[in-house]
Amino acid sequence: MVGQSFINFLQGHPWFDITFLGASDRSAGKPYHEATQWRLDGPMPAAIANMKVEECKPIERAPKLVFSATDSSVATEIEKAFAEAGHFVVSNSRNYRMESDVPLLVPEVNPDHLKLLPLQAKRGWKGFIATNPNCVAIPLALALAPFKQYGIKRLLVTSMQAVSGAGYPGVPSMDILGNVIPYIGGGEEDKVEKETIKILGDLAGDHIENLNAKVSAQCNRVPSIDGHLVAASLELEQKPTRDELLNAIRTYSGIPQKRRLPSAPAQAIYYMDQQDRPQPRRDAGRDRGMAVSMGRLRECSVLDWKFLCMAHNTVRGAAGAAVLNAELMHSEGIL
Amino acid sequence: MVGQSFINFLQGHPWFDITFLGASDRSAGKPYHEATQWRLDGPMPAAIANMKVEECKPIERAPKLVFSATDSSVATEIEKAFAEAGHFVVSNSRNYRMESDVPLLVPEVNPDHLKLLPLQAKRGWKGFIATNPNCVAIPLALALAPFKQYGIKRLLVTSMQAVSGAGYPGVPSMDILGNVIPYIGGGEEDKVEKETIKILGDLAGDHIENLNAKVSAQCNRVPSIDGHLVAASLELEQKPTRDELLNAIRTYSGIPQKRRLPSAPAQAIYYMDQQDRPQPRRDAGRDRGMAVSMGRLRECSVLDWKFLCMAHNTVRGAAGAAVLNAELMHSEGIL
Amino acid sequence: MVGQSFINFLQGHPWFDITFLGASDRSAGKPYHEATQWRLDGPMPAAIANMKVEECKPIERAPKLVFSATDSSVATEIEKAFAEAGHFVVSNSRNYRMESDVPLLVPEVNPDHLKLLPLQAKRGWKGFIATNPNCVAIPLALALAPFKQYGIKRLLVTSMQAVSGAGYPGVPSMDILGNVIPYIGGGEEDKVEKETIKILGDLAGDHIENLNAKVSAQCNRVPSIDGHLVAASLELEQKPTRDELLNAIRTYSGIPQKRRLPSAPAQAIYYMDQQDRPQPRRDAGRDRGMAVSMGRLRECSVLDWKFLCMAHNTVRGAAGAAVLNAELMHSEGIL
Amino acid sequence: MVGQSFINFLQGHPWFDITFLGASDRSAGKPYHEATQWRLDGPMPAAIANMKVEECKPIERAPKLVFSATDSSVATEIEKAFAEAGHFVVSNSRNYRMESDVPLLVPEVNPDHLKLLPLQAKRGWKGFIATNPNCVAIPLALALAPFKQYGIKRLLVTSMQAVSGAGYPGVPSMDILGNVIPYIGGGEEDKVEKETIKILGDLAGDHIENLNAKVSAQCNRVPSIDGHLVAASLELEQKPTRDELLNAIRTYSGIPQKRRLPSAPAQAIYYMDQQDRPQPRRDAGRDRGMAVSMGRLRECSVLDWKFLCMAHNTVRGAAGAAVLNAELMHSEGIL
Repeated sequence: MVGQSFINFLQGHPWFDITFLGASDRSAGKPYHEATQWRLDGPMPAAIANMKVEECKPIERAPKLVFSATDSSVATEIEKAFAEAGHFVVSNSRNYRMESDVPLLVPEVNPDHLKLLPLQAKRGWKGFIATNPNCVAIPLALALAPFKQYGIKRLLVTSMQAVSGAGYPGVPSMDILGNVIPYIGGGEEDKVEKETIKILGDLAGDHIENLNAKVSAQCNRVPSIDGHLVAASLELEQKPTRDELLNAIRTYSGIPQKRRLPSAPAQAIYYMDQQDRPQPRRDAGRDRGMAVSMGRLRECSVLDWKFLCMAHNTVRGAAGAAVLNAELMHSEGIL
Repeated sequence: MVGQSFINFLQGHPWFDITFLGASDRSAGKPYHEATQWRLDGPMPAAIANMKVEECKPIERAPKLVFSATDSSVATEIEKAFAEAGHFVVSNSRNYRMESDVPLLVPEVNPDHLKLLPLQAKRGWKGFIATNPNCVAIPLALALAPFKQYGIKRLLVTSMQAVSGAGYPGVPSMDILGNVIPYIGGGEEDKVEKETIKILGDLAGDHIENLNAKVSAQCNRVPSIDGHLVAASLELEQKPTRDELLNAIRTYSGIPQKRRLPSAPAQAIYYMDQQDRPQPRRDAGRDRGMAVSMGRLRECSVLDWKFLCMAHNTVRGAAGAAVLNAELMHSEGIL
Repeated sequence: MVGQSFINFLQGHPWFDITFLGASDRSAGKPYHEATQWRLDGPMPAAIANMKVEECKPIERAPKLVFSATDSSVATEIEKAFAEAGHFVVSNSRNYRMESDVPLLVPEVNPDHLKLLPLQAKRGWKGFIATNPNCVAIPLALALAPFKQYGIKRLLVTSMQAVSGAGYPGVPSMDILGNVIPYIGGGEEDKVEKETIKILGDLAGDHIENLNAKVSAQCNRVPSIDGHLVAASLELEQKPTRDELLNAIRTYSGIPQKRRLPSAPAQAIYYMDQQDRPQPRRDAGRDRGMAVSMGRLRECSVLDWKFLCMAHNTVRGAAGAAVLNAELMHSEGIL
Repeated sequence: MVGQSFINFLQGHPWFDITFLGASDRSAGKPYHEATQWRLDGPMPAAIANMKVEECKPIERAPKLVFSATDSSVATEIEKAFAEAGHFVVSNSRNYRMESDVPLLVPEVNPDHLKLLPLQAKRGWKGFIATNPNCVAIPLALALAPFKQYGIKRLLVTSMQAVSGAGYPGVPSMDILGNVIPYIGGGEEDKVEKETIKILGDLAGDHIENLNAKVSAQCNRVPSIDGHLVAASLELEQKPTRDELLNAIRTYSGIPQKRRLPSAPAQAIYYMDQQDRPQPRRDAGRDRGMAVSMGRLRECSVLDWKFLCMAHNTVRGAAGAAVLNAELMHSEGIL
């Protein structure tokens, strides 16, 4: 599914062309439309349908820039092979996210974490791996970024995640129609807790000093199609007013906005004033699925503030995140 | 909808018969099947279909025990009129819940709050009003009851609520299909926060001393049909082990269980060991919809513990709650 | 899923006890709660949880009456082995349904087809196989039965089928949330077309003379949970009035009703006068899921009449159908 | 909802600008964002948010071309007033659809029906009313158009319609979650039956000679969001082969395609070879929601052929249909 999202999202991209499709040995040699069953809404892009699928190895034809949507069961070896061989691997897989020399990027939030990349040379790699976070951690980190200046001490989050996050076939309809499943496998809660403090951490020489905050997550699957919604409460060291916070959120901006990167949303965070927003179905598609929406900032009687944030999980939370990472690197002259 | 749930739930009740149906003037005089459109699953109970609907006033034919599912826009006056005239009003409406002389009952948790009833005589009422809490506060209070002995200090809850909680026509399908609405009107979050500490409060002479805990709620509507699921995190004064807590939950029992009240679930709380339970569609119907299910008790890195709880919102959270309240009072010799 | 439905449905059955659970070699030897993951709403029946699963062979411990929910990939051999060894196999699998010496039973409609059973002795079997139809053909055949006396010539049906009909994991949620899939695999349309005319056929000595009607089906998957809804149009040889037809439908009754078989619905067909019924979620559960509901009988400008019919697909359309078949045979003295 | 769809669909239109918004007296005078609650996915177009809503009368400021999404309870009078005053009313309302001097247009199918417009001068109107059909009749008529040359004699259709077709608040979620409602109010089946034969009818001097075919429709509401799916069976006078039919479908083209009207889909009909298509969620958005998709053409044992067709009901079936009608008229020099 994420592979298909990459293909969809890269159609018409001004900087990147798809010239190579790597897949399992089972698919190698087949045209793409035979190797896969298109699961996304709308037809398979015609430009890609007849492209031959190749073995997922750093062969000569493979381009310098490689996007990886590899399953975590094989990503460790495959991504390493490409990085070793000199490719720039921009990965959506979780395998290298928490490695100390691998940046876990949200381009608006921590572009300076790119400075970790040269450290990977110590592994004997000619190329590198850069990763994007989990699909919940991305909107969460972006929504938290404007709060960081006030000292985030504690954070409690409850997610309501769409079925597209589980891939295909993913969640059986018998499990989710008219239901909620209060559990998401693959260590989802752990990922949200750990990735968030790495993303919001500070570069300290040759490593990231994690944000010194306690984070606790509860992750739930709900019968929405696209868009992970996150209810958060947090405690701050300083005590800004609501207006100060709203101003910080609304004026928050990063390199993607300043450089108008092709996939960047016009605004880093869309704070919505309506009391019943953001909503996955209505807001996930904003700015081609790259927007992070936020709403209902209000005082929390237990911690300090509570709010909601949301992003399209397969776009801003996966394929689009990786493409924006590559755009950031390209604009930095790294690619 | 709650009125219909009362009718459904009282079919075949061993102690209570429906002998009187009060409704708005517009409906009065019509047989029930003409006065209403049956919205619950299954057919309208035949026994009630031809019963004549009466004006909602304490006329002579009205029975001593009156269940109220009156809209909050009119409940204040109607319930008062019945209580004044000597009726025992067991109400699901929110209007009197927070009055200092009105018990807000969860029979397993605070049966002693019934001692507030005689205080209502000071209002000049010959009868009384007893209420049940909001449909989120009920499973929450029951799930929290075993923790109370360890001193509940702070509580954060995020609810995922079913559409039946909004009545009929309630939530438009255009709003909720494939979506989540992170807001529930009518002051839902406020109700959850305030009712929970009253339910768990202690009787102190002529009033309830609220539980001295901070509570913060975020309420969401999800596309489930029945069953409100609540993700909670809480901080305790004492530091019991997980085994002590699980034992307290599993052995928690109240008067409804001890006296085997007709509508009481066999167990006060069903703690489920499966990591993906409770689920609204699969677990809400347990014990005729009267069970509170709980699961995933685990350490919380921000507060102390987190868990999920769930109950059928129109049964245990509304009509069934009121009937169990009446059964408690009957077993106490009050009715 | 159908196996679990059998277990659920047989709880508390007055005539049949579950004494033996046969499954694949992989599961044999394990207690049932380890061999399977319970997928139905509500908890696994306690009585069955610790029963040891056996190999699915006609070993000595196996009881005379055997219900089969075997996958069609293995049903041909397994059911034959049991029948050969003298067991009475009451099967929900499709493998033997269209065999000329195997009855395809809907007990209200064609109980005389049981007379085919002795013919199976020619196969060298000491026992026999009796089958129930596909989950669409059952409500359709029952709804058509009252029309049969007027000569059914042509029949067009479009089904809207619930996801539970596809088993587990069955339909991926990504395929069906907010969607319709206008195709159901496994030859569904063919089954509906062929089984319907066999069920409604007449016993002619040693075989069934199929109903001499043309049938055409279009089968669709919709995001309902339980209950297959069927829109039908049909042409008749004779021209009864609507009142005559309604009367035939409402008074239609069969052996299950006359003998009050334990699983029989009180009425063979519930014709509903409301213009928007039957509805899967609201009506599938009637009479423990064994009712066939019908509605909207009206003139068709192309053929003669059109109407809707509906039944719970995993109960009346599968496990409950087989149990009712067994009850019919028991009441006939066959078991 | 249709009004909002008009606004959405006309954003960036090369020929038409929104310069006037007419609404009920209650809304007149307010800026649009105050007069309405935006119900479509994504944010309200900024260009329109502050436009002042006017009374829905042919006042001087009103433009020549007027799109009408007026409720049928008031459309008769309002549309007449505008037509009388010389406006060109392009209406999505049903009120004038079946009038003998009013074209019921599907631009690919019956552009010559525009010749009815001058007849409206006999009503004393300086302008005229042109209408688009019902949201089921549109995809159906387009899918049938290639069959017309073979003589359509009889047609049976069963629709599975999305909730957006009912407007807002429309279908209560309690009615449709996990359910199907086999009835759509407002005379839906009648509209489908009558409009289809008018659309496919031939201009005969001063009136339309309806297609001489019998049509029977069954209309159902299913829990899809956008996209009405129609299962159809039809009988033909001639007996073309499947290949001839497929060729006729695939090569079918009309003025919108030939003139590349701005809102025209690239192809009049997208016939999909996959056996499980078209699907509402996956295919309704094709070509900005203006495509009609078709699939599963196969022999019908009762009539001659059966197939499925589908279109986005609020775009191709409503607002987009009206805009395409206006584009057709503009390209004909009528506007």
